[in-house]
Parts: sequence; structure tokens; C-alpha cells
Amino acid sequence: MPFVRIDALGADGHRLDALGRAVQDALMEVLGIPPEDRFQVLTGHDGTTSTLRHGDCPGVHHDDGIVFVAITMRAGRGPDQKRALSRRIAELADPYADTEPRNVFVSVTENASIDWSFGDGEAQYAPAGGDAAGAVP
Amino acid sequence: MPFVRIDALGADGHRLDALGRAVQDALMEVLGIPPEDRFQVLTGHDGTTSTLRHGDCPGVHHDDGIVFVAITMRAGRGPDQKRALSRRIAELADPYADTEPRNVFVSVTENASIDWSFGDGEAQYAPAGGDAAGAVP
Amino acid sequence: MPFVRIDALGADGHRLDALGRAVQDALMEVLGIPPEDRFQVLTGHDGTTSTLRHGDCPGVHHDDGIVFVAITMRAGRGPDQKRALSRRIAELADPYADTEPRNVFVSVTENASIDWSFGDGEAQYAPAGGDAAGAVP
Repeated sequence: MPFVRIDALGADGHRLDALGRAVQDALMEVLGIPPEDRFQVLTGHDGTTSTLRHGDCPGVHHDDGIVFVAITMRAGRGPDQKRALSRRIAELADPYADTEPRNVFVSVTENASIDWSFGDGEAQYAPAGGDAAGAVP
Repeated sequence: MPFVRIDALGADGHRLDALGRAVQDALMEVLGIPPEDRFQVLTGHDGTTSTLRHGDCPGVHHDDGIVFVAITMRAGRGPDQKRALSRRIAELADPYADTEPRNVFVSVTENASIDWSFGDGEAQYAPAGGDAAGAVP
Repeated sequence: MPFVRIDALGADGHRLDALGRAVQDALMEVLGIPPEDRFQVLTGHDGTTSTLRHGDCPGVHHDDGIVFVAITMRAGRGPDQKRALSRRIAELADPYADTEPRNVFVSVTENASIDWSFGDGEAQYAPAGGDAAGAVP
């Protein structure tokens, strides 16, 4: 269910794939997401027709190796799980994609079980007549 | 007001347009969104400089025909409307864009009326001095 | 912390940069965001492999000069700040990027302090053992 957008500058297909695997493996290890529950948009920007801007706030130095990881998932994970998730993504980005931990930017946005359909037009986590709240994960 | 991002692999302009119309028509039919209330980013990915990753969770088989539909809209629609929306998008994707219903992935994120400006720097759904909560739709 | 996506049709690097500066300057002026707290994905669409769709709702005429500004930031700003933010973005888009105020579309999505990591795998706004709620801004 997590829906992930990853944006990086000048990334080729190999690096995009590695970044995607780093995030997916972190989701699996920390949140127990199943391996097949992988839905990602991986975008390399050429720096001209599309590009990134980054600063150093708060106290972390970034350069053009920065990677934006935007995760949408349903609510329910606590602060400790979220901290562990960001930590693990940053840890894996280095060996997987030669991306320094300081350059891994993560933002999480939450929604509800009813807000997802994985295909066939069904709300698999909140079927009609079922428990609309669903279960996490 | 719904702001929609659609991502597909190897889609040309014709398919992107058809996918955009499928989502807009579903929003109009199910939620009563006006025809002119259409704001979409339609992106075809070449599979190299930008690409998608997909799995089969939960129990739905996807292939590279998968389409990610990410909808941001203000809160207020109930579970039945959301279920009907995903169902209708999946139904229309097939005749409009030759996309099998199993390959239609939908994720909804909500915000508030005050979170929208449609131009001229005004918060049209929550004008100053008005009812900040606005009305849905 | 705000994470910003800007999408425009046929924008070259110069216009994208100007749009990014308009949004950043508005965030700084209205919300007190520090200059170095700038994290943006700026995308120009060629109109074929990726494109935008826009309507005139509600009562604002748009054309292909439309710019979508999607801002993710943590919750805590009130209606007046949000109104002022949209107003200032629209005001600056004209002198900075030759974009008419009517063509500036803004959508804000909120999350929490714990939902951000700016690098090094840490949740800088909600450190372990700290006040998980963090402070705004």
C-alpha cells in the first residue's frame, strides 16, 4: 500500500532501481510491508526540463545527490516506527545506491484504509459491508 | 478542485488524455464535480529516465499497463462515495484507455477548503470573512 | 520543511527556477520559513509525453500558462496564513516568472513533525526522547 515517489537529479535507470529497492526493503523491515506491496514512481531529473532545489535546513548539508522520498500510507504507525523507517531508508541508500545518508530526504503523508484501491475498482482495505477502518498494516 | 496526478509507463499523449478523461468523468458522475473543475498532471514514463515499480498486493495481478491515480481533494466524502469513485475510474479506464481494471491503482489524500487556491491568489472555497470550512462539493 | 512540487507546461529551466523562487520567497515572507529550508521538485511538461489539464473552475479563467503548486508542510498554520501564502505566491509569480496570478493554482497538504527527515535518517523535528509534536515553524 505505501505509494512512493522518489525524485533524484541525473539518476539513470540503475540508480533509480537501487533507490526504489532501498525504500521498499526499509518498508518491509520496519513496517512489515509485504515484498509484493510495492508501488513506486521513480523519476530522474535532467536538471533542465525538470530539476530539484535543495537547501541545508536544518543543519544538514545537501548537494545534488539529494533524493526526495515522498511516502503516502494509511495512518496508524507511531513515532518510533516512523523514526526507524527514515533511519533505515538512509542506511540502505548508501550501499544500494551510493547515496549518502545526509542526502536522503523523507516526507510521509497519511490517509485512511478507504482511500486505497489496488485494482479492479475495489477498496481492498475497506470492502463494502466490512470494517471500514481496516487493519494496519 | 480535485488535483489529480496520473502516472503510466510508455503512455503517449493519446493514452494520457484518455486516462485523464476517465478519471474526470468518474469524478463528475460519482462526486458531482463540475466538468470545468479539472486539474491534472498526466505523466508517461519512458522506463529509463523515469519509471514505475509495481507488485501484486493484495491479490491483484498488475503488469506494466498499471496506472497510478493519485487524487488530492478536500475531506467530506464518505466511504460509499470513495468506493464508487474507484469503481467508476476502473470501469472507464478500459473503454477509454484500453486499461484493464486490475491495473488501475487509486490513492486519495484529503485536505481542507482553506488549502485550495484556483488562481488570483484567493482561497475561493474559504474566503476571508466567510465560512472557513466551506461546503462540499 | 515545506516540500513543494511545481508543474508547468513548456517551461524551460529559467522559468522553472523563477517559479521556484517565487514560491520560496512567499514561504519565507508569510510563514517565516528560513531561506535554506527549500526543497522543491520543478517539472516542465512537454505537452506530449507528459502534460497538464486545466479547467476554469470556479470562475477563474486558466490557459496553458497555468502553474500547479503543491505544498506539503506540517500542520499548524491558520486560515489567515494560508490565505496570505496563496496571495503572495500569485503576486510574485508575475514579476518573477511572467505568470499571471489567475494561472497560479495552489494546493496544500499537511502532515506532522514526525513525518519529516531532512537527512542522516533522523526525524529532526521530532527527535527520539523529545517533544514528538515539535514546534511550528
